[in-house]
Amino acid sequence: MEELKGATPVVGMVGGGQLARMTQQSAIALGIDLRILARTPEDSAARVVGNVQLGDDRSLTDIRTFAKSCDVVTFDHEHVPDSVLRQLTAEEFRLRPGRAALRHAQDKLRMRTRNTELGMPNPRWQAVSNIDQVTSFAAETGWPVIIKAARGGYDGKGVWPVSDEAEAAAVVRRAVQESIPLLVEERVRFRRELAVQVARSPHGQAAVYPVVETRQRDGICHEVVAPAPGLDDERAAQAQQVAVELAHALDVVGLLAVELFETDTGVVVNELAMRPHNSGHWTIDGAATSQFEQHLRAVLNLPLGRPDALAPVTVMANVLGGQDPDVHGRLVHVLAKDPDVKVHLYGKEVRPGRKIGHVTVRGSDPADLVARAQDAAAHLNGNGVEDE
Amino acid sequence: MEELKGATPVVGMVGGGQLARMTQQSAIALGIDLRILARTPEDSAARVVGNVQLGDDRSLTDIRTFAKSCDVVTFDHEHVPDSVLRQLTAEEFRLRPGRAALRHAQDKLRMRTRNTELGMPNPRWQAVSNIDQVTSFAAETGWPVIIKAARGGYDGKGVWPVSDEAEAAAVVRRAVQESIPLLVEERVRFRRELAVQVARSPHGQAAVYPVVETRQRDGICHEVVAPAPGLDDERAAQAQQVAVELAHALDVVGLLAVELFETDTGVVVNELAMRPHNSGHWTIDGAATSQFEQHLRAVLNLPLGRPDALAPVTVMANVLGGQDPDVHGRLVHVLAKDPDVKVHLYGKEVRPGRKIGHVTVRGSDPADLVARAQDAAAHLNGNGVEDE
Repeated sequence: MEELKGATPVVGMVGGGQLARMTQQSAIALGIDLRILARTPEDSAARVVGNVQLGDDRSLTDIRTFAKSCDVVTFDHEHVPDSVLRQLTAEEFRLRPGRAALRHAQDKLRMRTRNTELGMPNPRWQAVSNIDQVTSFAAETGWPVIIKAARGGYDGKGVWPVSDEAEAAAVVRRAVQESIPLLVEERVRFRRELAVQVARSPHGQAAVYPVVETRQRDGICHEVVAPAPGLDDERAAQAQQVAVELAHALDVVGLLAVELFETDTGVVVNELAMRPHNSGHWTIDGAATSQFEQHLRAVLNLPLGRPDALAPVTVMANVLGGQDPDVHGRLVHVLAKDPDVKVHLYGKEVRPGRKIGHVTVRGSDPADLVARAQDAAAHLNGNGVEDE
Repeated sequence: MEELKGATPVVGMVGGGQLARMTQQSAIALGIDLRILARTPEDSAARVVGNVQLGDDRSLTDIRTFAKSCDVVTFDHEHVPDSVLRQLTAEEFRLRPGRAALRHAQDKLRMRTRNTELGMPNPRWQAVSNIDQVTSFAAETGWPVIIKAARGGYDGKGVWPVSDEAEAAAVVRRAVQESIPLLVEERVRFRRELAVQVARSPHGQAAVYPVVETRQRDGICHEVVAPAPGLDDERAAQAQQVAVELAHALDVVGLLAVELFETDTGVVVNELAMRPHNSGHWTIDGAATSQFEQHLRAVLNLPLGRPDALAPVTVMANVLGGQDPDVHGRLVHVLAKDPDVKVHLYGKEVRPGRKIGHVTVRGSDPADLVARAQDAAAHLNGNGVEDE
């Protein structure tokens, strides 16, 4: 047992989004006092947590005040500046994951460098600071290539697929102007995208979830199928092995989500996140222990729960905001149409394309479950109603 | 769709206990704003709900103020005085369940009278106001008999098993002094105790859960086994039929829990509760839709979810307070010992014998699951530690 300030452990989560909101459901069960640092009282989590500090999640002063009232501080996003994390670490606040781990989820260049040192499966990649480096890289891999900002980006974007030298030059010019460090990656010819969640506690226990398939359109995750249909056992084991090794090597505490490409020959690491992740939302209804409960257990150094699936297949579909904000008005139809659908709404203001909730369906036939989850999600965002 | 005050439905729950606390987990998923009327900020639910009004759940003024901010008002206990409910009904607040239904959970005499009119299986019973009525009743049924307060009671009790005329006379004398209306019931020779939960919505949809076995010691529920092991189909159907008929006949909206005795020849109604109930806590981890989600759906007139069990058997054991308040300190051992155990703690101050949480285990062998659930519950309350 670690020392706590009181009889009830206080976990502070920086950020008031839907990840913090769903963490509250598990905190309630475990008798944990979840405290959040949110920007406004209208934040998704601030609506459902009693213990809210309003403040700026980039401010050292605000986070320090927050951290003083908590036994452990964790995060619902990766946006706390490294300088703030460094200072809080020096002041011996208990940050989980710690700064050294978190930097690999904040900085893509650091992640690729470390992955390469560890022998993890990466796409071909290179740090770049001028257009000549990009064109000579592309001469080896072929166009298109993917330029990425190591941190941040501009115009709300940090990843740019570019088809030729002219497109690449425009990205590099703008990034150099704004002092954004860049890397370039080959465009991986993948069969599909996969993801693995692993939880790790400070004393090194790890629990890995089944490998899932994530289906993206326009760069947005639309559906997750758990487990990934037809994935052979050896490749599933390889993907889980990558996640577990990364969690240990990077000293992750809490949840690590590893997004992967499945290629003809294996898997390749795409992105990392060190927190509960959209690709793990299926675990609330579909696994013996949800990723949110698992994250809380890990950051409090409690034994981890079983990550086993409860049904042969679980499908999660994101609900994206549509034109009409009256989501509750449509809920009645969705619940009436398919009593097996589990609905999760985030209490967020509806804006077109914004993730405002998700739905889950358990069963055994992936195609049937995907169709039903898509149908429910489309009805909730108002896009499905005209189809009938 | 019923008219709401805003875009997000606001469900007000009178009472700040663990039932309101667990309702919050489902409100978060459904995007419902749960508001509670609690007595203190330390109440179990007040610790985890953002939207708390502090006040007295017996005061017309406090409940009226509370009700004005809600679309629907429901209850986590039966203790709101009938006079308050009558006035709120006259003022057209939306109370669910309504006063006419709720009176059958508040008044045992009314419940027995109505049950008899409806032809429901009752024990032999009779309203009594003097000792002679009790002794002539017992002359027919044999001693012991059970004397019950129709409402309220004294010294924290409202049910008195009495073995002879002297014991009965003492109870009747005290009750008459305190103007407590009484009834007497035969002591049912039962094989075991059962319970059924049914949800009913305002437009009459009903969803009934599997019949469970409840195991009591010293009048306190210790374990619930779902479904009741070895219960024959016909008797299970009879029990469910009783619950559904009562829900319709009494015009219940929300959850109805019917506690039953199983006898050699059938089932007999023992008690009613019109809210989520301890005998339904297994549904959080063990059913497709938890009783808390089902209650919210019902009181908002949303379509009900499937009540199906997720595993062949689920066992719930209550965690009762022991001598040592450090429940969190023991949680680590419980989670380490059995990773299949789901723990639910209520954030309540630990007092010996008080319900402070529950545990659930899913599987297939009732005896094994009961042993594991008992073991986890005993460890959490500090009584199991010495056994090892």
